[in-house]
Amino acid sequence: MNLILNSGRLAQGFLAAGLAAGIRRRGRRDLGLLYSKAPCAAAALFTSNKIQAAPLLVSRRHLRRGKVRAVIVNSGNANCMTGTPGIRAAQAMASAAAAALRLKPSQVLVASTGIIGRQLPVEEIVRAVPRLADALHERGLSDMAEAIRTTDTFNKEATVSFFLGGRRVTVSGIAKGAGMIAPQMRLATMLSFIVTDAAIASRVLKKALADAVAGSFNAITVDGCMSTNDMVVALANGQAGNRTITAGSRDHARFLKALRCVAAALARMIVKDAEGATKFITIDVKRAGSDAAAEAFAFGVANSTLFKCAMFGANPNWGRIAAALGAAGGRLDWQKVTIALNGAVVFSKGRPVASVRRGILKGRDVHVVIDLARGHGAKRVWTSDLSYGYVRINAEYN
Amino acid sequence: MNLILNSGRLAQGFLAAGLAAGIRRRGRRDLGLLYSKAPCAAAALFTSNKIQAAPLLVSRRHLRRGKVRAVIVNSGNANCMTGTPGIRAAQAMASAAAAALRLKPSQVLVASTGIIGRQLPVEEIVRAVPRLADALHERGLSDMAEAIRTTDTFNKEATVSFFLGGRRVTVSGIAKGAGMIAPQMRLATMLSFIVTDAAIASRVLKKALADAVAGSFNAITVDGCMSTNDMVVALANGQAGNRTITAGSRDHARFLKALRCVAAALARMIVKDAEGATKFITIDVKRAGSDAAAEAFAFGVANSTLFKCAMFGANPNWGRIAAALGAAGGRLDWQKVTIALNGAVVFSKGRPVASVRRGILKGRDVHVVIDLARGHGAKRVWTSDLSYGYVRINAEYN
Repeated sequence: MNLILNSGRLAQGFLAAGLAAGIRRRGRRDLGLLYSKAPCAAAALFTSNKIQAAPLLVSRRHLRRGKVRAVIVNSGNANCMTGTPGIRAAQAMASAAAAALRLKPSQVLVASTGIIGRQLPVEEIVRAVPRLADALHERGLSDMAEAIRTTDTFNKEATVSFFLGGRRVTVSGIAKGAGMIAPQMRLATMLSFIVTDAAIASRVLKKALADAVAGSFNAITVDGCMSTNDMVVALANGQAGNRTITAGSRDHARFLKALRCVAAALARMIVKDAEGATKFITIDVKRAGSDAAAEAFAFGVANSTLFKCAMFGANPNWGRIAAALGAAGGRLDWQKVTIALNGAVVFSKGRPVASVRRGILKGRDVHVVIDLARGHGAKRVWTSDLSYGYVRINAEYN
Repeated sequence: MNLILNSGRLAQGFLAAGLAAGIRRRGRRDLGLLYSKAPCAAAALFTSNKIQAAPLLVSRRHLRRGKVRAVIVNSGNANCMTGTPGIRAAQAMASAAAAALRLKPSQVLVASTGIIGRQLPVEEIVRAVPRLADALHERGLSDMAEAIRTTDTFNKEATVSFFLGGRRVTVSGIAKGAGMIAPQMRLATMLSFIVTDAAIASRVLKKALADAVAGSFNAITVDGCMSTNDMVVALANGQAGNRTITAGSRDHARFLKALRCVAAALARMIVKDAEGATKFITIDVKRAGSDAAAEAFAFGVANSTLFKCAMFGANPNWGRIAAALGAAGGRLDWQKVTIALNGAVVFSKGRPVASVRRGILKGRDVHVVIDLARGHGAKRVWTSDLSYGYVRINAEYN
């Protein structure tokens, strides 16, 4: 399986587009559309934030009816905390896309990202939809990936192709996200749209998506702040002509591998593009009491602002890792803990290791390994540092 | 009741001192001592971090024996994650102070603050103790307050005097803390030492301390990072000559009021001196389903890095308050929520208020009021913003 990033490639039978509708500053692409020529199996996961944006409410309803064939998405405005006008605006987006694509409104999902608490400029969006539908193209994924960016500095696209029974199957996905990222709960995610030409039932696709998200979008954090608009959608239109993938089959295992690969690549790209980030940090918690405990410890460290600031300063102050582990709430015998930074053990057998090389964290990549010597639980999470850039972006953003 | 800050005043029968023992850079005060001429009722609360520094383990043991009469404390080194040598070092500190003061080691509590994972320079400390004991003085509280500072930029001392049955009673306290501050759990606190000349039983003092801490040190957060070394100690030596305070008496109510006043003043000083802080933020959550729910919502907002960055930018982006409320996990009907910033309602009746005055957050003080229209729960917390200064201090600190 060969992972290709930012190629603009789409699975067969899908078209995409992105253009500037005038929601954001002049000339910036801010409206995207994804369309399947054939009926799709669909699956989606939404944020577990108790406050959910209007497009999520509308998309949930449409998903329940099934038969989704398109997604319309805007950046520059979250359409969240916007009351009844916000719901109507999200519905109007779906209806406009449906009219242009000759679908029913319930066949269109809606997503938004941007500032909370402002009414969506829905007239501009509706006016731009026919032009957007005309722009749909087999190579249009990059335009759509650009249209969903907010503080992102680069496009996030990933594609994998492989063969099932002699048929070439493709999984392509895009994502956005750079701040307000902390999918701490089982179903919380970023904005991501993944399409495949594989033939697969909705139920099987749904499980595969949940599995792939657990090890990708739900294994990253930028700032510990869970969004109101997170959403991952997977559409499968069967155009590859493979025999329909059933649960537990060998084909299923190969498909899942491809889906995981695409989702993890997109998740890592989000962390690499994290607001103001200068470090890409991998945290491995090993031998915890359980996987859930490992996850709590890993996110406890990943979301510690003191740890993140130390990483920004390339400062091997591992005491902050210890403090974050102890604050995470899980059972812990600190005398047995081993902590290593980029391969160098800094704490072991109940004592600090006397000399830690100062330059050990100079590079972009940091690998923290925490061995709790307690059980068989493990978790890997990816995160970024907390820099002046993050503060600047989020002090000014509005 | 008259609150006096940074006066160096101590309750009767107590002496304090602080000097430079050479733990920190040359000339900085880094070792403090507190001593009572008479036997004391004692109470203490410790961090709920699962990793606890050596001095906490030693102090807990000494407290159990009762009869505490002194506290020795150093800054510049947390004596945490230091294994058996760390325990021995904490014991050596207590023993040295006990020898100089003609007490038993179990009559001395030990506290430390500073970097985690380095062995304490215990010889320097032991060598300095006789000099420290000689320096004990009725006006020595300011020197001790200085000796416990780390990244703190000013001393934190507060004193209240009042009369009980014609006897003047004084409650004096000092505190330190500027970062790694998030007493999220019932018993987690900062470093603070409060002394009173009131006559009060240990059991009554313990309850009063827990009550006072709930509305002060446990109602603040700087960065959501809970320390391994937090500790609050209260000592009462009865030198005021009042009738011993019993639970539920009118004297008890007056004493509690004084204790709360001193603790809250010290807690607010910690937030005002938070690392890099440019804002002093009060968050009031009202009409939540319960006090516990109100607390979760209030800390959810107070610990949101996005909210804190917005405050640094004087940016009234209240959508981040909404996102943090939704992520806090409690039940919430967002259509009923009212959010106000410095008196201006920004969200009400399910809709954003169209125009928020841009300059509304320009001053140092920010008051956020969140009305959930759900029940009778309420909580007030104090926090600071997240600035370039915080990042700089914590990227460099080592």
